[in-house]
Amino acid sequence: MSARFALDPRLVADTHAIGELPLSQLVLMDDARFPWLILVPRIAGARELIDLDDRDQHALLGEINIVGRALETMLRPDKLNVAALGNVVPQLHVHVIARFSGDAAWPRPVWGFGERSAYTEPERASRIASIRASLRDVLT
Amino acid sequence: MSARFALDPRLVADTHAIGELPLSQLVLMDDARFPWLILVPRIAGARELIDLDDRDQHALLGEINIVGRALETMLRPDKLNVAALGNVVPQLHVHVIARFSGDAAWPRPVWGFGERSAYTEPERASRIASIRASLRDVLT
Repeated sequence: MSARFALDPRLVADTHAIGELPLSQLVLMDDARFPWLILVPRIAGARELIDLDDRDQHALLGEINIVGRALETMLRPDKLNVAALGNVVPQLHVHVIARFSGDAAWPRPVWGFGERSAYTEPERASRIASIRASLRDVLT
Repeated sequence: MSARFALDPRLVADTHAIGELPLSQLVLMDDARFPWLILVPRIAGARELIDLDDRDQHALLGEINIVGRALETMLRPDKLNVAALGNVVPQLHVHVIARFSGDAAWPRPVWGFGERSAYTEPERASRIASIRASLRDVLT
């Protein structure tokens, strides 16, 4: 199935590529207000978490752990938000977001909150470099 | 650890009890606008999904599958929303929500959207009875 996988164009438009985990593409939401990563399993046609078979679900859960722990180690957030919504982009994707009690949307969810604030080029480069360094053992 | 587990009072206030799954309490959000279930693992002090050990994570994922599939079978939603947020109530809890393209918040997330609309007593009894019937093999 992987041969036919392609990242939804709306995800491409809103994110920056970070790299590949064994199951998922890892991308950074282009919103400097929140450290906001998205995992997109390379499974063509996948829409719902619960439609994946056990092996893929466990692999995805493992990658959520890796990414969530990297955010915790790097940033010491007050809370992680982990969510598979897909109301706008139905392609299965899992948000892993580091939340802080002082962030722009706190305590509300980030989706649809105010206007996205794109990274400046140096901010983006710096953020992506940090994440890649933190995940260097698992990213390709 | 289970001995010290207690459902957060804010979750008690906003929900109705449905029953117990092997790991989690299952409750219904008291908001008639959305079929909205919440799983609360009976693990005292748990805050983040990724803080659970592998066994508990896999058990929770299994219960998300059971509850999500029950909602799909009962209601044929357009999308499931599955999320562990916890910005307001940090006790670990996982939302599993059946979403429809015509629902009040679509395509936005349900959290913080407008005013909660409590079930009438017959609506609530009917919804809980349907869910209990659908999960009768796993609920205690």
